[in-house]
Amino acid sequence: MINILFTGNDASWDEYEPHLQAAFASLPFDVHLSRDIPADQVDYIVFGGEAPITDFAPFTRAKLVQRLWAGVEDIVGNETLTIPLARMVGGGLDQGMIEWVTGHVLRHHLGMDDHINGQDGVWRNDVTPPLAQHRPVTILGLGALGQACGQALAQLGFPVTGWSRSQKSVEGLTCVSGPDGFETALSSAQILILLLPKTPATENTLDENAIAKLPKGAVVINPGRGGLIDDQALLAALDQGQLSHATLDTFRVEPLPPEDPFWAHPKVTVTPHIASATRADLAAEVVAENIARGEAGKPFQHLVDRSAGY
Amino acid sequence: MINILFTGNDASWDEYEPHLQAAFASLPFDVHLSRDIPADQVDYIVFGGEAPITDFAPFTRAKLVQRLWAGVEDIVGNETLTIPLARMVGGGLDQGMIEWVTGHVLRHHLGMDDHINGQDGVWRNDVTPPLAQHRPVTILGLGALGQACGQALAQLGFPVTGWSRSQKSVEGLTCVSGPDGFETALSSAQILILLLPKTPATENTLDENAIAKLPKGAVVINPGRGGLIDDQALLAALDQGQLSHATLDTFRVEPLPPEDPFWAHPKVTVTPHIASATRADLAAEVVAENIARGEAGKPFQHLVDRSAGY
Repeated sequence: MINILFTGNDASWDEYEPHLQAAFASLPFDVHLSRDIPADQVDYIVFGGEAPITDFAPFTRAKLVQRLWAGVEDIVGNETLTIPLARMVGGGLDQGMIEWVTGHVLRHHLGMDDHINGQDGVWRNDVTPPLAQHRPVTILGLGALGQACGQALAQLGFPVTGWSRSQKSVEGLTCVSGPDGFETALSSAQILILLLPKTPATENTLDENAIAKLPKGAVVINPGRGGLIDDQALLAALDQGQLSHATLDTFRVEPLPPEDPFWAHPKVTVTPHIASATRADLAAEVVAENIARGEAGKPFQHLVDRSAGY
Repeated sequence: MINILFTGNDASWDEYEPHLQAAFASLPFDVHLSRDIPADQVDYIVFGGEAPITDFAPFTRAKLVQRLWAGVEDIVGNETLTIPLARMVGGGLDQGMIEWVTGHVLRHHLGMDDHINGQDGVWRNDVTPPLAQHRPVTILGLGALGQACGQALAQLGFPVTGWSRSQKSVEGLTCVSGPDGFETALSSAQILILLLPKTPATENTLDENAIAKLPKGAVVINPGRGGLIDDQALLAALDQGQLSHATLDTFRVEPLPPEDPFWAHPKVTVTPHIASATRADLAAEVVAENIARGEAGKPFQHLVDRSAGY
């Protein structure tokens, strides 16, 4: 009997439990899934995180902490966590992100807001947007999500530049890295997408200096993490016209407080951390696969590099 | 010397003339392009149509009328037009349409308007849209534009059904045809896209009966032609909730008059016939290619079937 502890609130449990049970049913061993198992009898921790564990020391025989989403910044630095930690990769996260990013890139590319908000009876058909092939897009971050979004945009015809800390090669994208690559990536970016992990090294990646390197009137889309942006620098650049719009899905504090200036700013669209959600049915299969690997003595998938922080 | 007559208004001439001259410069014969050539000396007519010819009889030696856009309903029935008529295919039309259709499908799929218009400080993250794979889309019309849009949407993960008068086969799409296929195509369409040509047979394709076959709450997107829709039936279905939204780019009368109820309807987005515009640089190459074929004695491309009307 493999004991699997689920940590999460009631809503999360209700959403995931049936899908996890269904996925575990196909495993070649018996599984006990519960939110209440003595710590020293837990074999795996499925970590939703709305009811987080802060001390992992009592979990003496656990083999893996499996996150249900992509970000791990709230747990990766926990010194009591000495067993392997895996992020969610797949589980609908990539597909959802592709759809949200592609949708908002096309929204800005086509100038959709002018039409959605401009139903005033005036027929304005004198502005033809350039074709996608003349609208350079840059993605900061070439993890699973950045790569997937970049390739979907390239498929639609956008010239896509991708920047990552260490040099990568992704079919269909112009890949750059390092400080020089960062400047190159920003200088052409009419639309900039932030998909970096949140680590000490990526804090305030988009600060006043970085924003100044963008072409005037660029659009920023942030489905990554709130801390990647210097909020004050972003607001100033919007007010000065250096940026024409920011569509933000992630924030330093979530839910974003009602009094935050982002809500009321005419050049900011706030979306409530919806760009990509783990889908329980798909995520359950990823969890089951990783537990199967653990029991078969194979290496786990999607392990977090603790020193890099993601 | 080949004499090429351009018909169009001043703005159109200013836009196209340099690109046409550049494209013609690579032809292996001399070309004279003008808006003023005696009719009996004209070899080809490049037909923008803002300053239309109504009597083609005097063009006794002309070999081809080459339209600069996709629709020909205003000219196809002209009995004085006995020489071949070609529509624009390519020329940026397909790529522009892909971008506009994909953008608006994703806009409705993701429920973007709620966020664009809902910047009220309330963090509503309790509704996760289904993934594209669970959002069936139907395209009526599988010409060059319908096929291209269908494949772009399928690439993003949407299950796409395409309907056409005669059965077609398009990779990645479920293709249906005829009256039974029409019912099948409508019955699953959470998002319906109209890309049929305007002919007597397609007039009012989306009438009260057709709308009733759609799933409740479906979205209609019409970048095709205004006459494809029974406007009164559409408005009634929006008011009754059978349809949740209509995004319309084409109308029976254009520009759409300011007093038209579409402008003020909260469930209608009017866009001013911008879904797909011919791009002069790309279109000029298509025109030059067809003229080269004519002079080489090869069959013209993109000829209109007069009996079908497109």
